[in-house]
Amino acid sequence: MNLAASQSAIRNPQSAIERIQPYIHRTPVLTCQTLDHMAGASLFFKCENFQKMGAFKMRGAANAILQLTEEQRQRGVATHSSGNFAQAIALSAQMLGIPAFIVMPSNSPEVKKAAVRGYGGEIIECEPTLQAREDTLAKVVERTGATFIHPFNDNQVIEGQGTAALELLQDVDNLDIIIAPVGGGGLISGMALATHHFSPKTKVWAGEPAGASDAYESKLAGRIIPQTNPQTIADGLRTSLGDKTWPIIRDYVERIVLVSEDEIMAAMRLLMERMKIVVEPSSAVALAAILKEKEVIADQRIGIILSGGNVDLTALGDFFG
Amino acid sequence: MNLAASQSAIRNPQSAIERIQPYIHRTPVLTCQTLDHMAGASLFFKCENFQKMGAFKMRGAANAILQLTEEQRQRGVATHSSGNFAQAIALSAQMLGIPAFIVMPSNSPEVKKAAVRGYGGEIIECEPTLQAREDTLAKVVERTGATFIHPFNDNQVIEGQGTAALELLQDVDNLDIIIAPVGGGGLISGMALATHHFSPKTKVWAGEPAGASDAYESKLAGRIIPQTNPQTIADGLRTSLGDKTWPIIRDYVERIVLVSEDEIMAAMRLLMERMKIVVEPSSAVALAAILKEKEVIADQRIGIILSGGNVDLTALGDFFG
Repeated sequence: MNLAASQSAIRNPQSAIERIQPYIHRTPVLTCQTLDHMAGASLFFKCENFQKMGAFKMRGAANAILQLTEEQRQRGVATHSSGNFAQAIALSAQMLGIPAFIVMPSNSPEVKKAAVRGYGGEIIECEPTLQAREDTLAKVVERTGATFIHPFNDNQVIEGQGTAALELLQDVDNLDIIIAPVGGGGLISGMALATHHFSPKTKVWAGEPAGASDAYESKLAGRIIPQTNPQTIADGLRTSLGDKTWPIIRDYVERIVLVSEDEIMAAMRLLMERMKIVVEPSSAVALAAILKEKEVIADQRIGIILSGGNVDLTALGDFFG
Repeated sequence: MNLAASQSAIRNPQSAIERIQPYIHRTPVLTCQTLDHMAGASLFFKCENFQKMGAFKMRGAANAILQLTEEQRQRGVATHSSGNFAQAIALSAQMLGIPAFIVMPSNSPEVKKAAVRGYGGEIIECEPTLQAREDTLAKVVERTGATFIHPFNDNQVIEGQGTAALELLQDVDNLDIIIAPVGGGGLISGMALATHHFSPKTKVWAGEPAGASDAYESKLAGRIIPQTNPQTIADGLRTSLGDKTWPIIRDYVERIVLVSEDEIMAAMRLLMERMKIVVEPSSAVALAAILKEKEVIADQRIGIILSGGNVDLTALGDFFG
């Protein structure tokens, strides 16, 4: 992977904001006195749970699709995802009037398939294995000529996700730390590059479930350690890093804080009970990490990306019961 | 009840906004394309679920307490409530450094007692009957000299609650209809008076659970019909109207829309799934009423007061399961 290429891709991330702005919400930054008091610090929450289709993934999807040629647009786009990126690609493509082919495991929840269809995406089901996903995707691309857009291991996707952090840095001065959850690494690496360029004295942290700690392990080892058998309620964070996201994380993320499942649930509950906002478990990981590091962050100004709000409400009783 | 007196009390509700402004949040007005599409109208949501202590009740409590004399402040305030008003009085009193005595039924949930204590309120428990509440309150007032502030049947409380509507009317032009839930009637009557003065062509509607339909029945009969055996998940709306709120509702609320329990839960789910905000069931009643009247409201501009967000998350799974 060529790090210089990735950096040059976001040489001007303001231009990415301008590119995707007609297709996304500029999400609000919220604060909460109770949570500030609990953390002993000033917390600024960038609410990507209020983003279109409910998650930051809309940014990367739109940024990638908008840079296709007219000929590529006519053939459409394809991806494999069972989660928020599937919806993000479908909705971005719908807005631009181009076809979207989404490879989803056959055991994906019906509600997620319905959401993709609701945004006009064509679903191609496959067996629930990584190999089947990739094989099916290859066939779809061959048949349709659609352009494959990877959910996170793609420079334009990374750049697009970074706009969430850039907006936060524009809206809140003098952040000491900025933190987001890490899964495949699209959000955290986009955020790391944007922060490095626009607010180099702001430290970049990541929160990661202890039950899906590949980014933490990779930082320790100095090389990518693949995720094996992840066990976490934070379903957006079960993926492995990619060869484009890893070097950025290696070089620009200062610290990865591991949190337990109980800490994730407690943070999610705080966000819902105290801030009255709906977040998905993956979003709560960043707040959980900050609350775990209270001594380190005392009196500092902390930017927190709340990555999404697509949670199954029927499961909440089990979470909190 | 003297309606003229009540109206004169809000002759200048802008002054109530200025009085309470240091003690409350000016809550945001949110919109949602998906819900607009579902309703076939333009909906503007005044988010009192983001208010301090999580509900609009903070406005009326603060407005009443701030108009006490110095001598009255020293003796403190008292109320009886098992819900949001108990917390609102406790927090308002705490902010002003005066004592608050809260009479609560002995079977109130521990979480609600803890919230009142957390805001520095002194709880006096009583048997869970209306008679016991009133007797206990009378004794507390006699013992302490505290000023009793009724949760809704009080002109200053009504005026304070009306500021939520006034802010919405200031922030959004040309509303055709403004709607809020009706329980004891503090919010709806404050809203009705504020709207009548500041935007007389805006129609005032209320949403009410079919299982607690005393306001609807009272409007039909032309006199107060007390609530008997209310059956609704909307726990903030089980109370009867008061003799101060009823004449305002009689004269200035154009329409009361009854909604079923299923309609309340469906609206609550929409607010959480689509807008990603946490509301309590009582809040969802207003949206449920609007969705029920789709044919009447087509293409209109509708202001909706989301009254609060204090919901027991552990019960959500049961609601939505």
